[in-house]
This record gives sequence, structure tokens and C-alpha cells, in this order.
Amino acid sequence: MIFEMIKSVGIAHNSYFLGAHGKASVIDPRRDVDIYIDIAEANNFKIEYIFETHRNEDYTIGSLELAELTGAKIFHGSQVDFAYGNPIFDKDKFRLGSLDLEVLETPGHTKESISLVVKDKSVSNDAQMVFVGDTLFAGEVGRVDFFGKSETPHMAQLLYNSIYQKILPLGDQTIIYPSHGAGSVCGADIREQDMTTIGYEKKTNPLLQLSEEEFIQRKVEEKLYTPPYFRQMEINNQKGPKILGGIPYLTPLNAHEVKSEASKGAQIVDVRKPTSFGGGHIPGSINIWREGLGAYAGWFLNYEDPIIIVDDNEQKMDEIKRYLIRLGYDNIYGHLSDGFPSWYMAAMKVENLDMWSVHQLKEAQDNGQDMFLLDVRKLNDHKKKYIKNSHHIWVGDVPLKLNEIQKDQEVIIYCDSGYKSTIAASILQKNGYKSVKSVLGSMGAWLKAKYPVVK
Amino acid sequence: MIFEMIKSVGIAHNSYFLGAHGKASVIDPRRDVDIYIDIAEANNFKIEYIFETHRNEDYTIGSLELAELTGAKIFHGSQVDFAYGNPIFDKDKFRLGSLDLEVLETPGHTKESISLVVKDKSVSNDAQMVFVGDTLFAGEVGRVDFFGKSETPHMAQLLYNSIYQKILPLGDQTIIYPSHGAGSVCGADIREQDMTTIGYEKKTNPLLQLSEEEFIQRKVEEKLYTPPYFRQMEINNQKGPKILGGIPYLTPLNAHEVKSEASKGAQIVDVRKPTSFGGGHIPGSINIWREGLGAYAGWFLNYEDPIIIVDDNEQKMDEIKRYLIRLGYDNIYGHLSDGFPSWYMAAMKVENLDMWSVHQLKEAQDNGQDMFLLDVRKLNDHKKKYIKNSHHIWVGDVPLKLNEIQKDQEVIIYCDSGYKSTIAASILQKNGYKSVKSVLGSMGAWLKAKYPVVK
Amino acid sequence: MIFEMIKSVGIAHNSYFLGAHGKASVIDPRRDVDIYIDIAEANNFKIEYIFETHRNEDYTIGSLELAELTGAKIFHGSQVDFAYGNPIFDKDKFRLGSLDLEVLETPGHTKESISLVVKDKSVSNDAQMVFVGDTLFAGEVGRVDFFGKSETPHMAQLLYNSIYQKILPLGDQTIIYPSHGAGSVCGADIREQDMTTIGYEKKTNPLLQLSEEEFIQRKVEEKLYTPPYFRQMEINNQKGPKILGGIPYLTPLNAHEVKSEASKGAQIVDVRKPTSFGGGHIPGSINIWREGLGAYAGWFLNYEDPIIIVDDNEQKMDEIKRYLIRLGYDNIYGHLSDGFPSWYMAAMKVENLDMWSVHQLKEAQDNGQDMFLLDVRKLNDHKKKYIKNSHHIWVGDVPLKLNEIQKDQEVIIYCDSGYKSTIAASILQKNGYKSVKSVLGSMGAWLKAKYPVVK
Amino acid sequence: MIFEMIKSVGIAHNSYFLGAHGKASVIDPRRDVDIYIDIAEANNFKIEYIFETHRNEDYTIGSLELAELTGAKIFHGSQVDFAYGNPIFDKDKFRLGSLDLEVLETPGHTKESISLVVKDKSVSNDAQMVFVGDTLFAGEVGRVDFFGKSETPHMAQLLYNSIYQKILPLGDQTIIYPSHGAGSVCGADIREQDMTTIGYEKKTNPLLQLSEEEFIQRKVEEKLYTPPYFRQMEINNQKGPKILGGIPYLTPLNAHEVKSEASKGAQIVDVRKPTSFGGGHIPGSINIWREGLGAYAGWFLNYEDPIIIVDDNEQKMDEIKRYLIRLGYDNIYGHLSDGFPSWYMAAMKVENLDMWSVHQLKEAQDNGQDMFLLDVRKLNDHKKKYIKNSHHIWVGDVPLKLNEIQKDQEVIIYCDSGYKSTIAASILQKNGYKSVKSVLGSMGAWLKAKYPVVK
Repeated sequence: MIFEMIKSVGIAHNSYFLGAHGKASVIDPRRDVDIYIDIAEANNFKIEYIFETHRNEDYTIGSLELAELTGAKIFHGSQVDFAYGNPIFDKDKFRLGSLDLEVLETPGHTKESISLVVKDKSVSNDAQMVFVGDTLFAGEVGRVDFFGKSETPHMAQLLYNSIYQKILPLGDQTIIYPSHGAGSVCGADIREQDMTTIGYEKKTNPLLQLSEEEFIQRKVEEKLYTPPYFRQMEINNQKGPKILGGIPYLTPLNAHEVKSEASKGAQIVDVRKPTSFGGGHIPGSINIWREGLGAYAGWFLNYEDPIIIVDDNEQKMDEIKRYLIRLGYDNIYGHLSDGFPSWYMAAMKVENLDMWSVHQLKEAQDNGQDMFLLDVRKLNDHKKKYIKNSHHIWVGDVPLKLNEIQKDQEVIIYCDSGYKSTIAASILQKNGYKSVKSVLGSMGAWLKAKYPVVK
Repeated sequence: MIFEMIKSVGIAHNSYFLGAHGKASVIDPRRDVDIYIDIAEANNFKIEYIFETHRNEDYTIGSLELAELTGAKIFHGSQVDFAYGNPIFDKDKFRLGSLDLEVLETPGHTKESISLVVKDKSVSNDAQMVFVGDTLFAGEVGRVDFFGKSETPHMAQLLYNSIYQKILPLGDQTIIYPSHGAGSVCGADIREQDMTTIGYEKKTNPLLQLSEEEFIQRKVEEKLYTPPYFRQMEINNQKGPKILGGIPYLTPLNAHEVKSEASKGAQIVDVRKPTSFGGGHIPGSINIWREGLGAYAGWFLNYEDPIIIVDDNEQKMDEIKRYLIRLGYDNIYGHLSDGFPSWYMAAMKVENLDMWSVHQLKEAQDNGQDMFLLDVRKLNDHKKKYIKNSHHIWVGDVPLKLNEIQKDQEVIIYCDSGYKSTIAASILQKNGYKSVKSVLGSMGAWLKAKYPVVK
Repeated sequence: MIFEMIKSVGIAHNSYFLGAHGKASVIDPRRDVDIYIDIAEANNFKIEYIFETHRNEDYTIGSLELAELTGAKIFHGSQVDFAYGNPIFDKDKFRLGSLDLEVLETPGHTKESISLVVKDKSVSNDAQMVFVGDTLFAGEVGRVDFFGKSETPHMAQLLYNSIYQKILPLGDQTIIYPSHGAGSVCGADIREQDMTTIGYEKKTNPLLQLSEEEFIQRKVEEKLYTPPYFRQMEINNQKGPKILGGIPYLTPLNAHEVKSEASKGAQIVDVRKPTSFGGGHIPGSINIWREGLGAYAGWFLNYEDPIIIVDDNEQKMDEIKRYLIRLGYDNIYGHLSDGFPSWYMAAMKVENLDMWSVHQLKEAQDNGQDMFLLDVRKLNDHKKKYIKNSHHIWVGDVPLKLNEIQKDQEVIIYCDSGYKSTIAASILQKNGYKSVKSVLGSMGAWLKAKYPVVK
Repeated sequence: MIFEMIKSVGIAHNSYFLGAHGKASVIDPRRDVDIYIDIAEANNFKIEYIFETHRNEDYTIGSLELAELTGAKIFHGSQVDFAYGNPIFDKDKFRLGSLDLEVLETPGHTKESISLVVKDKSVSNDAQMVFVGDTLFAGEVGRVDFFGKSETPHMAQLLYNSIYQKILPLGDQTIIYPSHGAGSVCGADIREQDMTTIGYEKKTNPLLQLSEEEFIQRKVEEKLYTPPYFRQMEINNQKGPKILGGIPYLTPLNAHEVKSEASKGAQIVDVRKPTSFGGGHIPGSINIWREGLGAYAGWFLNYEDPIIIVDDNEQKMDEIKRYLIRLGYDNIYGHLSDGFPSWYMAAMKVENLDMWSVHQLKEAQDNGQDMFLLDVRKLNDHKKKYIKNSHHIWVGDVPLKLNEIQKDQEVIIYCDSGYKSTIAASILQKNGYKSVKSVLGSMGAWLKAKYPVVK
């Protein structure tokens, strides 16, 4: 028997490889499927079943990619009209050696959501583990707001029923494997804990301490951000995305080629750290730090214009490409060869971004310096506490709300740590704002410094 | 937070790396500690605590090795007088970020055995997981026979108490991480399941279905094999083994050097598969297939004479060295350069071993062929079923019971699959037996072929 | 600047990656092109030019595969009507930074053969190095017998002219990079030396010590083996082979599936060492040891029937697949999951092959034992010396010359070391020969043992 | 036969692994010797000989480290009284299979310098290749200024004799393998070319076009920089350095620990790119970009105070540690865990460094802005051309010549590309200079922009 959790950072996504007696299944494969092939080949497993717990919204699923390579069959819930794969239903069973995989229809997060219960029939009829998709997380439950306001109460009710009638009855002993970990946009506040049990969640999950009525009300009132790229993911995952056949090769471009592509509309994404971006960058480029691509690219990049990557020559293009193809960005086009230094070595124009420490911000405030102080954290975080005189726009909404920010003022941006604020700063610079600053450490450092906040 | 189970195959040993907020602990490190360093370095963790759940008998622990490299402190139970490290006691606590590690003294398998409970205090006071060492396994409990017959009932009682008064009260929700998986000699019949929960074990573990009296009686009656190398491991782990500083380099030797060392008493270990050994091998070599070294080397190799490895030039010396240093075999000396072919290319003497299929065995039996049919499986397996007219000697006991096997007869050996039988065959050949055969597939294939067995 | 020689063992093929100032060329890429992509990505090079020194006969070229992935342009000589790429001509130049690549048309091995001279124009007009394809090797020159007997003298003359009028005039200082190293079938007797110089070859290459007349006569008289798969390679390389898009995934098959495919005509290739094959194998399987696939698969495998691999579960399928796709075997189909042990564990029939040591052979001869002693080495090697009473058939010709070997006699086969003899033995067994033996160590060990040979 | 060139970037050092028939030698091993062990193990070679072409000045040699692990013997020239190893003399021979390694004493760069000629006696008595140490390079010869002004003419004469009487007579066909490539401080102007031949150097090496008198005069007049760490390397390499037993583990430190160590005198080395350093850094840290450590650490770091690394969390500590231990920096102590962001997240003080583009510099000059323009390139490069009104101090001399730079003026620093200028800027900031700027792209970009220079 082999069991592996494969984590995709950035989108905080978990997929699973479960095999026994030479036959294996993959649950919710990501699009760069080499890892499943590698596990299978290293352990002599034949991948036979691919399960999708639901039509995912936050990444492009790799089922077709993996099926093409291995001949495995794809299965998913029946309540969505998928253009590929096979519908499965409550109580359907699949067998891997002595393991039984039993299907539970668990709608709520989406209508066709399923869970998969694993029982070792050679041991007992009790559930050993359950793959719950986005139904339940460590300390959280799935969001139910994808079908519009009017449907939300109904979806919340479905979710409640799925949890209480399908999942919890499996028993306290059951280990829960959800599709997402902490940081995912698919749950409001997922705890940092890879695996949990039904018993532990019953005791500790705040949502499971509520009455049915309270539960539904809480879910109906919940306000969550929905990145614009979700629409594309839904299309990809319902129709089945393009098959890549591997990680695409990214053309190295010299500075002149990048400049030329940029002038024709290419999206220049600078994946370096905020300090690097501050020290110098290509005018018009957007800064999304490398490991942040999974979570933030989907807010700012479109699926039409070619995407060009600028890094610091760290030879991490493979990682970068994976982040982007997981989000369906098949329009990745090239990267600045040899990294940002080759831009300035070509005597191209360089733009700077002033990075402020929290101490500089404090001093400026104490001096009564005129500024537009912008908080780009999540609204909920802003509501809890903020630096006085802050305006709030969620970083993902900055491109849409430029009209709220005056161009002739000095704009000082903060977030939780200085990464998202630098994304926002880069967007302002791209839109012609001349006096923009990003605060290193932002609220995190501000609190560490014991500077005052408004609660 | 980062949590990884590190499996050491062969000895079916699990060690664990648990870290949070930059601080990490390692539980029961193996002796080749590079894997813990690698995880720490890749994730920016500082290893601060090393825990030994007990003085292990089946491998040489890597605590001192890891402490030397990282400066971490070592902790273990107080009921053994260790020559290194620090004793800890019931209810002692260690902190990693928001995680609490709480010590439970859980004697039974050994007197100083401890368990470590992990609670996330930012969530609740409920146990998330527990490292139980050899107290409890999936489907099994630890063996209690290490202190002699007279102490066994007492140890069994201690184990019962530890399980019922310390472990089970943690609650059904708790995930159990034992030190061993299926195949370990530290439990009679461990289930193949990496992690389990208290709830699941309460429902399914056969030992936990017994009354206190039955439990103790069962444990007292349990007959388990104890490989001779355990004595050396106990000494190593109580005194602290030699620090290696890395995986030792193994000198490549040519055929003449191997021959010369063999004549001076070196232990020649042929790690190729049974079929390869059958097709030709160095006279006087012992065959233990590569992946079997962890489980079987300790039965046949001593700690004095130099060990020389013969393989098929598969460039897997690193793996082989790891198996052996985990068992404390610091007397590994060299390997036959370019593998077995360099032996026969040097025109050295080659010995063969006839490999029989089960069909040949059946035919021979049907023809009434005179033979000494030897079953080298575990006694319990033999008692369940055997091929008629079989004699039984456990493979590990073959060197001690040669007087039970007549030299002038044809000896046909079988086991579960043909690997252990080939070990036994190699030992007979080394001791001058001329007509020995090993049965490929052995009992496994015999049953597949639907040939009759005595039950 | 970056320069790397990429060796493909088995076919002893060298390809080259040469880059400067961000632009790179690949000379004679093999079909598994990931290595060139990896070098390019790790070093920020854009592959712009792919050169084929000639239409290769001994492997399927990866030009189209690499061009598809990178957008590079393909160039080759003009004297063959390739279905892809661009013809180039004497004195054509390509530039990589300060390096000039100059084309020399150097027919002889084939009609369209070219060489590429590298000069660093920032240093001087002298040649630094030259890629000579199969024109010249360390200690050897290319074979000229591919166009039939009547054309051979003409091709030999062309080769002589190419060497003396194009290559040698580049000057003694020039480093020579040939397409093949020792062991290749593309030259009679290539020396084991990765790179040489014009000066060194002029002094030491036996072919370059001859007069023009002697040179041509020697080449005309030369007798070399031509594996049957060369025909397929010529077709592949002229038309352009199928694009794979990566290393194909190989289905793991269980014993029953292998048996079923075998009964329908699948080619079962056992890639284990001779001793392993001797100890037990699938009836009807051909033994070609893993590293020998590049050199020998092309003699025995066809391009129609599915190929199934049997190994010892060494997890080296990646290597095996590469050997086969380099030879164009797109009909690789699957492999026996978990290796040969899963065959006998399924109680399938097992065949043995007796492996003799040279001492056994000597003793049998001394005893006047009746046998058909078969030497399957190259004819030239046989002519130099052989064991008395040997018959000779080159291993590659064994399938065609079965009528020369009597079925009712004991057949003892030897070669240089025991690998090729085991191939031959497996072919005889497959064809119903019952009493076959392969000699471990063969001529190599025989000579080491100082046993007599006929010269 | 196996031959590999192992390049150590930064110090542009080449070591070599040469093996035949199972026996191997390593020439000038670096201190992190795992690469030689890996090659040996992967290819079944026993390392028997370690040669030092001379007592190296620019790195700590790994001979003792490698000998300790493998049991190989160390050999070097006889004219230095080494505390370890064995002296060898002109015409001494060593054998690896059919290869002869012949010693040539070739003093000049140092007194005990040797070269090693490789001949394949099975082919001819002609030299195939020669390891020349620092006697000769592609386009250059070794420096001769290590023994003081008075000895320089004598050393130059020795070098001339070694080249003309020992090396060149080996013949034009001989491939030359020097100990250094382009960028090394051991030769004035080494060409970028991995391997060359005697014939090519005779035709193109500018030094070999001179008469004996001219050659000596040129060498006597040559002005080369000598980094201060050379003294330590000479001591290390004559006495034999401490044996490490592996790459040391580097403790991860949090921001408070780094601050505390810094206050006690630790050397904080920020290995990020100039732009990153510009966007924010730890006050008092020195910036040497990661890949520049090999070439520049030796100018600025001492061997007593603990060294702490600050990076951008790129998980490249292994690479960094290797750079430093090659230079003998056994005082590496730790690294800022999670990289620079963990500094500002702890609300620590952050310093910025303004990075100017060349356009900003030009504009400032055009506007007549008051500034101290500092060129930190090599003196020779400065003499060739500089930006008007530049002062010159070689970057390595900046710590010694601070008195030449006024603290109250704005200091603008440039070099070739902006890396060395940022080193210099960090040193000024560390010494209390408040208004410092580093020019991105520096002279390289300035010329690309076609801005005027003084020649």
C-alpha cells in the first residue's frame, strides 16, 4: 500500500495518490502530472482511477492529462454535465487490493461534490479515511457562494446535510483528507494542519459547534473574495483543458525582445521579492513574488496577452511554469534571459519603487506628512485593526478601483507583510502613479514594533 | 508547520520530523541522518529536540549523530541509564510554535518507553496526534519479551496499563504514529497502514478487544523471534554509537582482493536476487537480497569480520551502506568493483544454486523423489500450513541447527517466496552441502498453483 | 560559453551542446532531448541551430523533437533529400557570439556528411575544434559500405579526400569531436578516447599512416556488421520520426497480462544480467542485458510486435525506455510489474539456463564430452583466436542461421564475456533447443585462466 | 576510461578526475570533495592518486579531505616543504590502466609547480594531454609575482623555461588542461575556453609570440591584484587544512539572534543581488552577491569573526557554504532563517541603497550635480576608459582607502556592471557614509547607451 499527499503550494491544494496491490488511484490531480507518474513508476503501480471530488474553481485539473498518459479512467459527481469522464453516484464502490473506495455524494460547496471513503475490508467495515474535497477542512467548511446570492441558503443547507448526514456518521476514528490547506481561497479560515479526524473536528471546528440554523446563517453571511480567474477554471474543468504533454519550454528573450513584446501588450510579470523590485524593475511590469503566483496571478493576469517572466536568474523557471499552468495560463510565452540584470545591462530604462520600513511610516505619520495610506489586506483583516487614516482596497480590486486613488498624492501602501502591497504598488506605477511607496513588513512589523492601530 | 514521516524500509521503522515556527523536533532518528538535515535546510527549520521513544533494539539510533551536526538536545525516558542525552518524565512539555509536545511515560515494551502527545494549544486542549513508539501499532501492540520469561507478565501488565491509562484516554480523534509498520520484528503482526487513530484501533485492533487478563495471557504466550544483533543494538543505543559524520565510502575491490579477504575470514554478502545467485555466485558467499538486508543481515553477520558486498553493478551501494550502518555494521569494508561479472571475468571459481519452480517440486514429490524438504518460514506460518513432509527450521536459526540437516541428502528449501529459502541455501552451501535447491515462489506460488498443503 | 559532450551509452554516440552569448546549437541530438533543454534552461541559452552531421543509421535523431519544443532550425547536408530541415553547403557560416561555425562538406561515410569547424574570431582564424560526424574517429575512420559493394571504392575515395583536403588542413592544433566513441558499429575499431586532435590522429591513427591507395583498399576490404534496424533508422531520419513529446509512460503489466500478450506475439525482452536469466526466466523471452539494449536490441527486435520488458525491479525503466526510443522502438508497450519475481510468484512456468564457468567448459572438453561449441563473437575476433572445435556464428546472425545448429545436440555458447552468448542462448531456447549452456566470462575468463586457444 | 573536468565557479578553478581500468586520480581537488567520490562510486573507480600541481593560493585544497575518505595517496612538487603528502620529481611515472602519467617539473608560477603529461602507451609515445596547473592558460601564462619584486625576474625566467623546454616540446597535438579558466586571479587575462592545445596556443597565445627577453619583461612589469586571503590559503595548503568530513550544517538564526551576533562583531554578508540590497538591507551588512562569493569574499572577510549569511530564502545555502569552505572560511556560523524578509518582519531597522540607472547618472552629470564619482574596477580597465571626473579605487582596496573618500559628499559608485559597485557601496554605508549610490549596469550599460567616456 502506498499513500501520498501531494501539496501544491500557492493554491494550498492537496491531491492524493492511493495505491494497493499494484493498482492506484489519484484524487484531484493537478495539471503538472509528472509527480503521479513518478510515484507510480517508482513503486510499480498502475494508475487506474482518477477521481475529481468536484469541478474545481481555483486550478485547472490534470485528470485528462493524466488519463492521456496512463489510460486511467476519470470519475466525478453526476450533477454537472462534464464534457469528459464518467459520473459516479452515492454508494458506488471501487476496489484497490483490500481497500474499498466508497462514493458519498456530498453537495454544498458545489452541486456535484463527492467524498470518497476508504475502508480496509480485510480489517473491518469502519472508515479509515475520507477524502472530502472542499466539503470540510481543518477548522473550516467549504464556501457555498458560487451559485449566486439566491442559491446560497440552499447550498448552505446542502453542505450542512452532507456534513451531518454523510461525513460525521463515518465515526470519530476517520482521518479526513481535504482538498485544501491553510491559505486556500476555497475556505474562509482553514487551519494549518495537514490532516485531521472527524473526532477532532467535532471537538474543535468552530462551524461544527453551531446549530443547523446558526450554521446556515453564518454561511449565508460569509463574505469571501472570488478571483476573476475562477470563471476560466470552471470552463476549463467542465470542458476539459488543453492537454500539454509536459511542462512547456519557455523561450529565453533578451531585453530588446522583452521590450518589443511589452510594447505590443505582453504582460510582464516580475517574480522577484519586493526589495528586488524596489531596487529596480522594468517600467510597466507587475510584481508578484514567485511563490505568490499561485494565489495572486489569477487576480491580475489575463488569458490572452502573452506572459513574460522576469526573475533574478535563480533558475527556477520550472517552478514558475508549474504555478502558471496550474492556473491554466497557457499563454506563458517567455522569460527575460539571465534575469533582470540583463535588462539594465542593455541600458534599458529602470524604474525604482521606494520601500519604506514601518519606522519610516511611523515617523512620516508623526511628522504629519501628507499621504494617501492604503491598506490592501482582506476586508475582514482591515476591519479587525488598521493603521489610522488608512483607506482600504483589497489588492485584487486595485485594478478596478484606481479611481479611488488620487494620482497627484503620495500613496503609501501596506498589507500584512509587504508582498501584496508591492503588487498593488506595481499596479499603480504601471498606471502612471509617480509617488508610490510600499511598506516592508507592513502590519506584521508594525505590530512587532508596538505601533498603535485602530481596532 | 511541517510534518514528515520518514520510513526506513527493511526494518519497517518510522521516524518523524515535526516543526513549527522555525523550530523542529525529530523523533527516533535513524543513523543516516542526512534526511532530517535536508528537510530542516529546505524549510528553514532549526532542529532543537531529538526524542527517543525508547532504547531501540532493532536499529542503531542516530540521535548523537544528529545532535553532533545540529546542536539539538536529546531526550529519552528515565528508566534506563543512558550514557548520553537527558531524561524526561511524565507531563514534561516541549513547545514548537503553538504546538505542545507532552510526555507520557508508557512502559511495557521497554521500561523507559515514552509517548509524545501533540496538542495545538491555539485550537484546543485535545490531542491531535501521538507518537507511541513501540507501545501500540496498527492492529498490534508492542512485544514485551525482552526482559526474560519471568519479567514478561509484569511487562505485559505495564503495557496494558500504558495503553489503557495513558494512550486510549487521549480520545478517539487522536492520530497514532507508531515507530514501526508492517514487517517489523517489534510487533507480532502489524497491519499495513501508515497511520491510524485511537478510535480506529479501539474498534479494530484485536489486542484491544481482549479483557485485561486475556491481554496479559496473550502477551505472555506470544512467541517471537529475536535476532542476535539486538544485543549489539541495545549496547549501541544505551552507550551511544560511534559518530560516523556521513555515509562511509566503500572501497571498490577487485576479484583477487575479495578472494584474499575471504580467505582471511571476511563475510561475503551477495545482495543480488535469488535467481542471480542461482545463476552463479562466489563460493562461500551468503545471499541476502539487497532490500532484505535491513531485516536479515542481523541474523547472519557478525560485528568483527569485515563485510564485503557483491552486487550486480547496479550502483546502489549508497542504499546498501545505509541498510548496514542502521544496524551498526561499521565493519563494512568494501564491495566487489563492477559487481559479480568481475568475479567470473577473473576466471575465479563460480558456484551455482539450482532454483526450482514449484512445478518442479510438485513433480519431484509426485515421483517420490528422495529429498529433505525444508521450510524456513516463521514457525507460526509453518504451523498454519506446510507442504507435506516438510521439516521446519526458521531461516535465522539455520546456522545453529545444521546438525538437523543431513549433508548427504538432497535438500530442497522453501519459504514464503524464495528469498529466505535462498539465504538458507547459501548458508548450507557455505557449510559444504553439495545438493541444495531453493524454490522460486515457494509457498506463495505453491498456493497459486493450487497444490495441496497440510494444515 | 558553454560546451558539453552528451554521451549515449550502448550506441556510443556523442552529441554536443555548444553555446555562446545566449545562443546555442546542438549537434546530432538524440531522440530523448530533455538533456539539451535542461542544459539550455540551466544556463539561459536559446537553442537556435540544430545540426545533423549526416543521416544517421544507428539511432533515430531527435532534431524534429528538439525543434518542436524550442523553435530551433534544423540544418543538414544537401546530398540527401530530407523531408524536413534545411540544406547547408560548404563554407556556410553560423555565428554564436564570437564563435563561427563553418560548414565543410565531408562525404565518404555518407554522401551528405558535413563537418562543422569552430573558430573563435575574437582570437584568430585558426580552428579550435571540429565536429566531424562519422568522418574520422579516435584511431579510426568512418565506414563506407552503406551504398553497396559497387559504390564502396568511390565512397572510400570521397572519405579520403574529405579527410585529406578538408579536415587535416585545419591544422594539428584542432580538437576533433566525433559522433561516436569506442564500441560503435559506425567504425571498425574506435579507440577509447573521448576527444583527440588532428595532430594526434596524424601521428597515431593507423588509417592515416596509409597511402591513398592503401587507404582505399583497406576500406574496400573492410567487413563490418550491419544490424537490420539500420534500415528503419535511415527511413526515420530521412523522413523525420514521430514526435514523442517526452519519454513515454510504460504500462506495468501483471504476470497474466504478460503471458497473454506473449501468446499474441509480443516480444518479451528480459534485460537482467546473464546470471539472473540463468537462474530463471520466462519461457520464450529474449535476454538482452539492460546496458546492452542500445547495441543489441536492433538485431533482434522488430518494429511491429509490442515489446514487453522484464527486469529485476530495479526501477530503471526510464533508462530502458531511453535506449529503446533512441532506436525508434515506439512499439514498447509495457513491463512486468514488480519484475521477474512477480512471474514466478504467480506460479507461472519458469525456464532455467545453465551457466557454465570456463572451468566447467575446460573439464567437459578434457573429458571429451560431446557438444556443439558455438562462438558468437565478431568474425574478426574469432579469426584471431578461438577455443578449439568452435563453430562460429555472429550473435546477430543466430536467428538467421538456426539451421546450422543441431537441435538434438548439447550447445555450449561463448562470446567475449558471457553477455552475447546468453543472448544467443535465449534465442536458441526460444526456438526449442533444450540443452543450451552459456559460458560465464567466456573468452575473457578463458584467457585469464590460461586455457589454450587456437590462433 | 573516464575523464571529467570539474569546474568551481567564482574562483574559475578546474580540477580533474581521470580514471582507467578501475583506478583513478584526481588533480587539484577542491575542498568539497563529494563530487569526486560520486564520480568514483557511480563508475566503480578506486581513487588511488591525488596530485597537486602546486601549492594553490586562491583556494583551500581538498587533498587531505579526499585522502581521508578514500585512502588515496597525495603527491606534489618537491620544492615546497609540505606538511603532508609525498614529493614527486621530473620523469616520475604513474600508471592508470594503459595510461601513463608523467611528471614534469615546471616552476615559474611557484617553485614547486609540476605538470602531468598523459600518454596512452597502448597507442603511442605521444602526449595526449597535459595538466599544466597555473603554468599556462588559454591565451595567458601564470603569474610570477608571489615571491616579491626581487624574485620576479627569476620566476619569469623559470616560467619561460618551463613552457619552452617542458610543455611546448610535447607537440602541437597535445590538449592542455589548465587549473583555471577565464576570470581567475591567477592569470592576468585568461581566455574563455575550457581546453586548448599546444598548437593553438603557439599560434594564438599573445605571450607565446614574444621573445624570451620580451616575455620576461612583460611578466616583470605585470601588475596584478593579490587578495588578502591568499596568505591564509598558502598556510592552509602548506600545512594541510582542517578536515571537515562533509559540508557543515549552518544554523538558522532568527532576526534577534543575527542582531545580537552582529553587535558582537559577526560579519553579516548579504548575498542577494544589488537590486535586492538596494531595496532594503540590514544596516552594517556587506553585500557580495551569491555567485560572487568565490571571487570577492576573500577581499573582505576575515577568518576570525563568525560569518552570517543573509539571502532571499532561495534555499541555496549548500552552494553558499561550498563557496566559503573552498576559501577556508570555517568561521561560517549561521544564516538568517527565512531570509531577509524575516529581518523586516521583526520590525528591525532597514537601510536602503539608492540604485541609479546610467541614465540617472548621465542626467546628474549633465546637470552639473556635485558628486564624488568612484570607479571600483580594476586599474587596467580604468586606464583604458572611464567616465569623466571618476576617481579610481579597486573594490578590494576600498576598505583600506576610505580616507580618499569624503564622507560629506554624495558618492556615486560604478564598476563593470553594478555588482562590485554595490559591494563598495555596502562598505561605505557600513562605515557611516550616508549618501551613497550604486549604478546599475555601470560601465557596461553606459557604453550600451553610447554615453561618452574618457579613454
